[in-house]
Amino acid sequence: MSEGTRDQVLEVAARGRAAAADLAPLPRGVKDTALHAIADALLERAAEILAANRVDVERARESGTEEYMLDRLSLDADRLAAIAAAVRNVAGLPDPVGEAVRGYTLPNGLELRQLRVPLGVVGIIYEGRPNVTVDAAALTLKSGNAVLLRGSSSAYDSNTALVNVMRDALAGTEVPADAIQLVPGRDRESVKHLMRARGLVDVLIPRGGASLINSVVEESTVPVIETGVGNCAVYVDASADVDMALSILVNAKTQRPSVCNAAETLLVHADIADVFVPRALEALKDRGVTVHGDERIAAFSADVVPATVEDYRTEYLSLDIAAAIVDSLDEAVAHIRAYGSGHTEAIVTSSQPAARRFTALVDSAAVAVNASTRFTDGEEFGFGAEIGISTQKLHARGPMGLPELTSTKYVFVGEGHVRG
Amino acid sequence: MSEGTRDQVLEVAARGRAAAADLAPLPRGVKDTALHAIADALLERAAEILAANRVDVERARESGTEEYMLDRLSLDADRLAAIAAAVRNVAGLPDPVGEAVRGYTLPNGLELRQLRVPLGVVGIIYEGRPNVTVDAAALTLKSGNAVLLRGSSSAYDSNTALVNVMRDALAGTEVPADAIQLVPGRDRESVKHLMRARGLVDVLIPRGGASLINSVVEESTVPVIETGVGNCAVYVDASADVDMALSILVNAKTQRPSVCNAAETLLVHADIADVFVPRALEALKDRGVTVHGDERIAAFSADVVPATVEDYRTEYLSLDIAAAIVDSLDEAVAHIRAYGSGHTEAIVTSSQPAARRFTALVDSAAVAVNASTRFTDGEEFGFGAEIGISTQKLHARGPMGLPELTSTKYVFVGEGHVRG
Repeated sequence: MSEGTRDQVLEVAARGRAAAADLAPLPRGVKDTALHAIADALLERAAEILAANRVDVERARESGTEEYMLDRLSLDADRLAAIAAAVRNVAGLPDPVGEAVRGYTLPNGLELRQLRVPLGVVGIIYEGRPNVTVDAAALTLKSGNAVLLRGSSSAYDSNTALVNVMRDALAGTEVPADAIQLVPGRDRESVKHLMRARGLVDVLIPRGGASLINSVVEESTVPVIETGVGNCAVYVDASADVDMALSILVNAKTQRPSVCNAAETLLVHADIADVFVPRALEALKDRGVTVHGDERIAAFSADVVPATVEDYRTEYLSLDIAAAIVDSLDEAVAHIRAYGSGHTEAIVTSSQPAARRFTALVDSAAVAVNASTRFTDGEEFGFGAEIGISTQKLHARGPMGLPELTSTKYVFVGEGHVRG
Repeated sequence: MSEGTRDQVLEVAARGRAAAADLAPLPRGVKDTALHAIADALLERAAEILAANRVDVERARESGTEEYMLDRLSLDADRLAAIAAAVRNVAGLPDPVGEAVRGYTLPNGLELRQLRVPLGVVGIIYEGRPNVTVDAAALTLKSGNAVLLRGSSSAYDSNTALVNVMRDALAGTEVPADAIQLVPGRDRESVKHLMRARGLVDVLIPRGGASLINSVVEESTVPVIETGVGNCAVYVDASADVDMALSILVNAKTQRPSVCNAAETLLVHADIADVFVPRALEALKDRGVTVHGDERIAAFSADVVPATVEDYRTEYLSLDIAAAIVDSLDEAVAHIRAYGSGHTEAIVTSSQPAARRFTALVDSAAVAVNASTRFTDGEEFGFGAEIGISTQKLHARGPMGLPELTSTKYVFVGEGHVRG
């Protein structure tokens, strides 16, 4: 019998739903004990996990997978220790469940409180990094949710081993083992069944490239939180400190080009272009960055590749950057509105009114003033951990920590109150 | 040319998007001035609005519409005055935009703030009450959003007149007229185009019956906030004060049976059934309520109609109630989980541990202790106004006021900060 049929996926979702009901009222102590049990088990059973991972890596290598993908897929003792340490870190974070978000007594004497509660069943669809399997399980467990994990088929053996170890660890605790489940099946069909499991699954969080996210958004009847696509811009205002602008541009583009908060577009105010652009092109060239520029940028150097509209829309995730000169701050905002992905945009400026206008008009999850786009991150923002970075406006926007994995419930208490 | 083609709907959505960008940074004073201009215009041009409404009412009467539907559809001078007063009330509410939800300085000196911002373009799909047209426009404008209104075709002339009057009123203010638009077209096709306008529309809020809401949820690629379906239960615990339980039950069922926070199910603990059920059946009978009960309820009176599983799932919105006896609080919770809609459930109890367990285990938007389900309402909760009651878990749950019509944006300010 093939794995991942509709019935099998729905059965897993229903077991998650039952586990979520048991998990929701558990106090923090119980959940933290379970997280430490998971961390212990990951270390104790490292040999088994690494053996399963070697199967995935070998299979991927034989099928011609690129080296950087093999690196993402690979585990070793050190990486496993880091994964276990991250689980203990989550245990140390405050429990969002039960937090009173609002609370007051109404004029009629009813006591009203709005309390954080778990979302219920959270489905995570992700690509070939086995560490996400454990990270996502730890964050959802801490926030009182049951998780359905659907990783890449390339990491199937690793993920199966990791989930088995985590579930076995839960068996010795008060947390139900079905709080952590792998979605059965290796093909896309099982993902489709998951996306149609409305009523059993409360939210799907796709983590990965634009095509994965778009297909989930298009097809899912389960509510989705979009994450991860970042076409971020650095705008160098007329009044920018040039050294600061260079430092921020180079950091945003090159410090880690493969991540969503790296810069993909440079916009320069015309009034500072003559001073800034030559130095920027030189600094980017020194670091191996190819600049795809408009005609006014290209006038500064023969190294500039002519940019098309497609360049302004592209999340390169590589040592490439699109660049254009704008005649005003408002033109920079218009460019960002037209081509950006709503992740993070930065302005470098010495003008307070310019900073105020840019932060007011730019409609992105995060806006940086005189700082690198690379700071948009749950750890950097002080959340302690991150399940992803939302680029949508509903529910959560920007880096999502534990509170973003909760909903709320109103409780009101009276002494026989009826409505007149 | 027929109205409501895909191109026409997308053009309206694109105009809304442009208006939303202009509207987002406007300060409270500008928006409040616009709201008062709208209220003034609704009163000044009452004759024109009421004439259009008479066309809708006549057409509906000729097509055999039921009297209570005609009543919902009808406007008169007093109702219009109340609608205008509600707009002025919204002008008096605090502006959620710009509120700092979180804010602190990070260890590296970056100043981080999470600020409320408008959602952008909000689509409202609703049934034949013209007052919703104005209410929804006022709430979305106050929260800095552009609105796309898609009311029932039965109210098309009324809605067209109301929107024309509101747009004309905006022409004399700094708020763009396209902040308030009617979705063109009277048929279902135009709704479908609206549901596929992802990227132009930020959220759809369907207000109406279960079938409307389900079809939007199934077909929309635009994120949806589900509202309005309420299959609410009153659970009478073993330790309940019987007089209090009767008072709450009668209020929850009969004070206004047609609304979503009215009770549709009664659950009674077996230990109190002999004392409570006969009095409850009598009180409900006195008020014309038909009880659809299980066998143990039916044993108390020949008037009880045998209940099927379908009864427990039904939102009657009429003088009917489903009823069952349960042997424990946990059985009541299981019944609610199986059949409820996640809106509001009430427990009547003198036991503090029972109240605590019920509020912890029931997974609904609101849980009432010794109070009627009828209090789940934005006005009653002190929000000043309400755009609907969400029964989903993402973004907003329970009554939605102005803050629920916003998203957030992170702003971080440095002095040349780069990531190491």
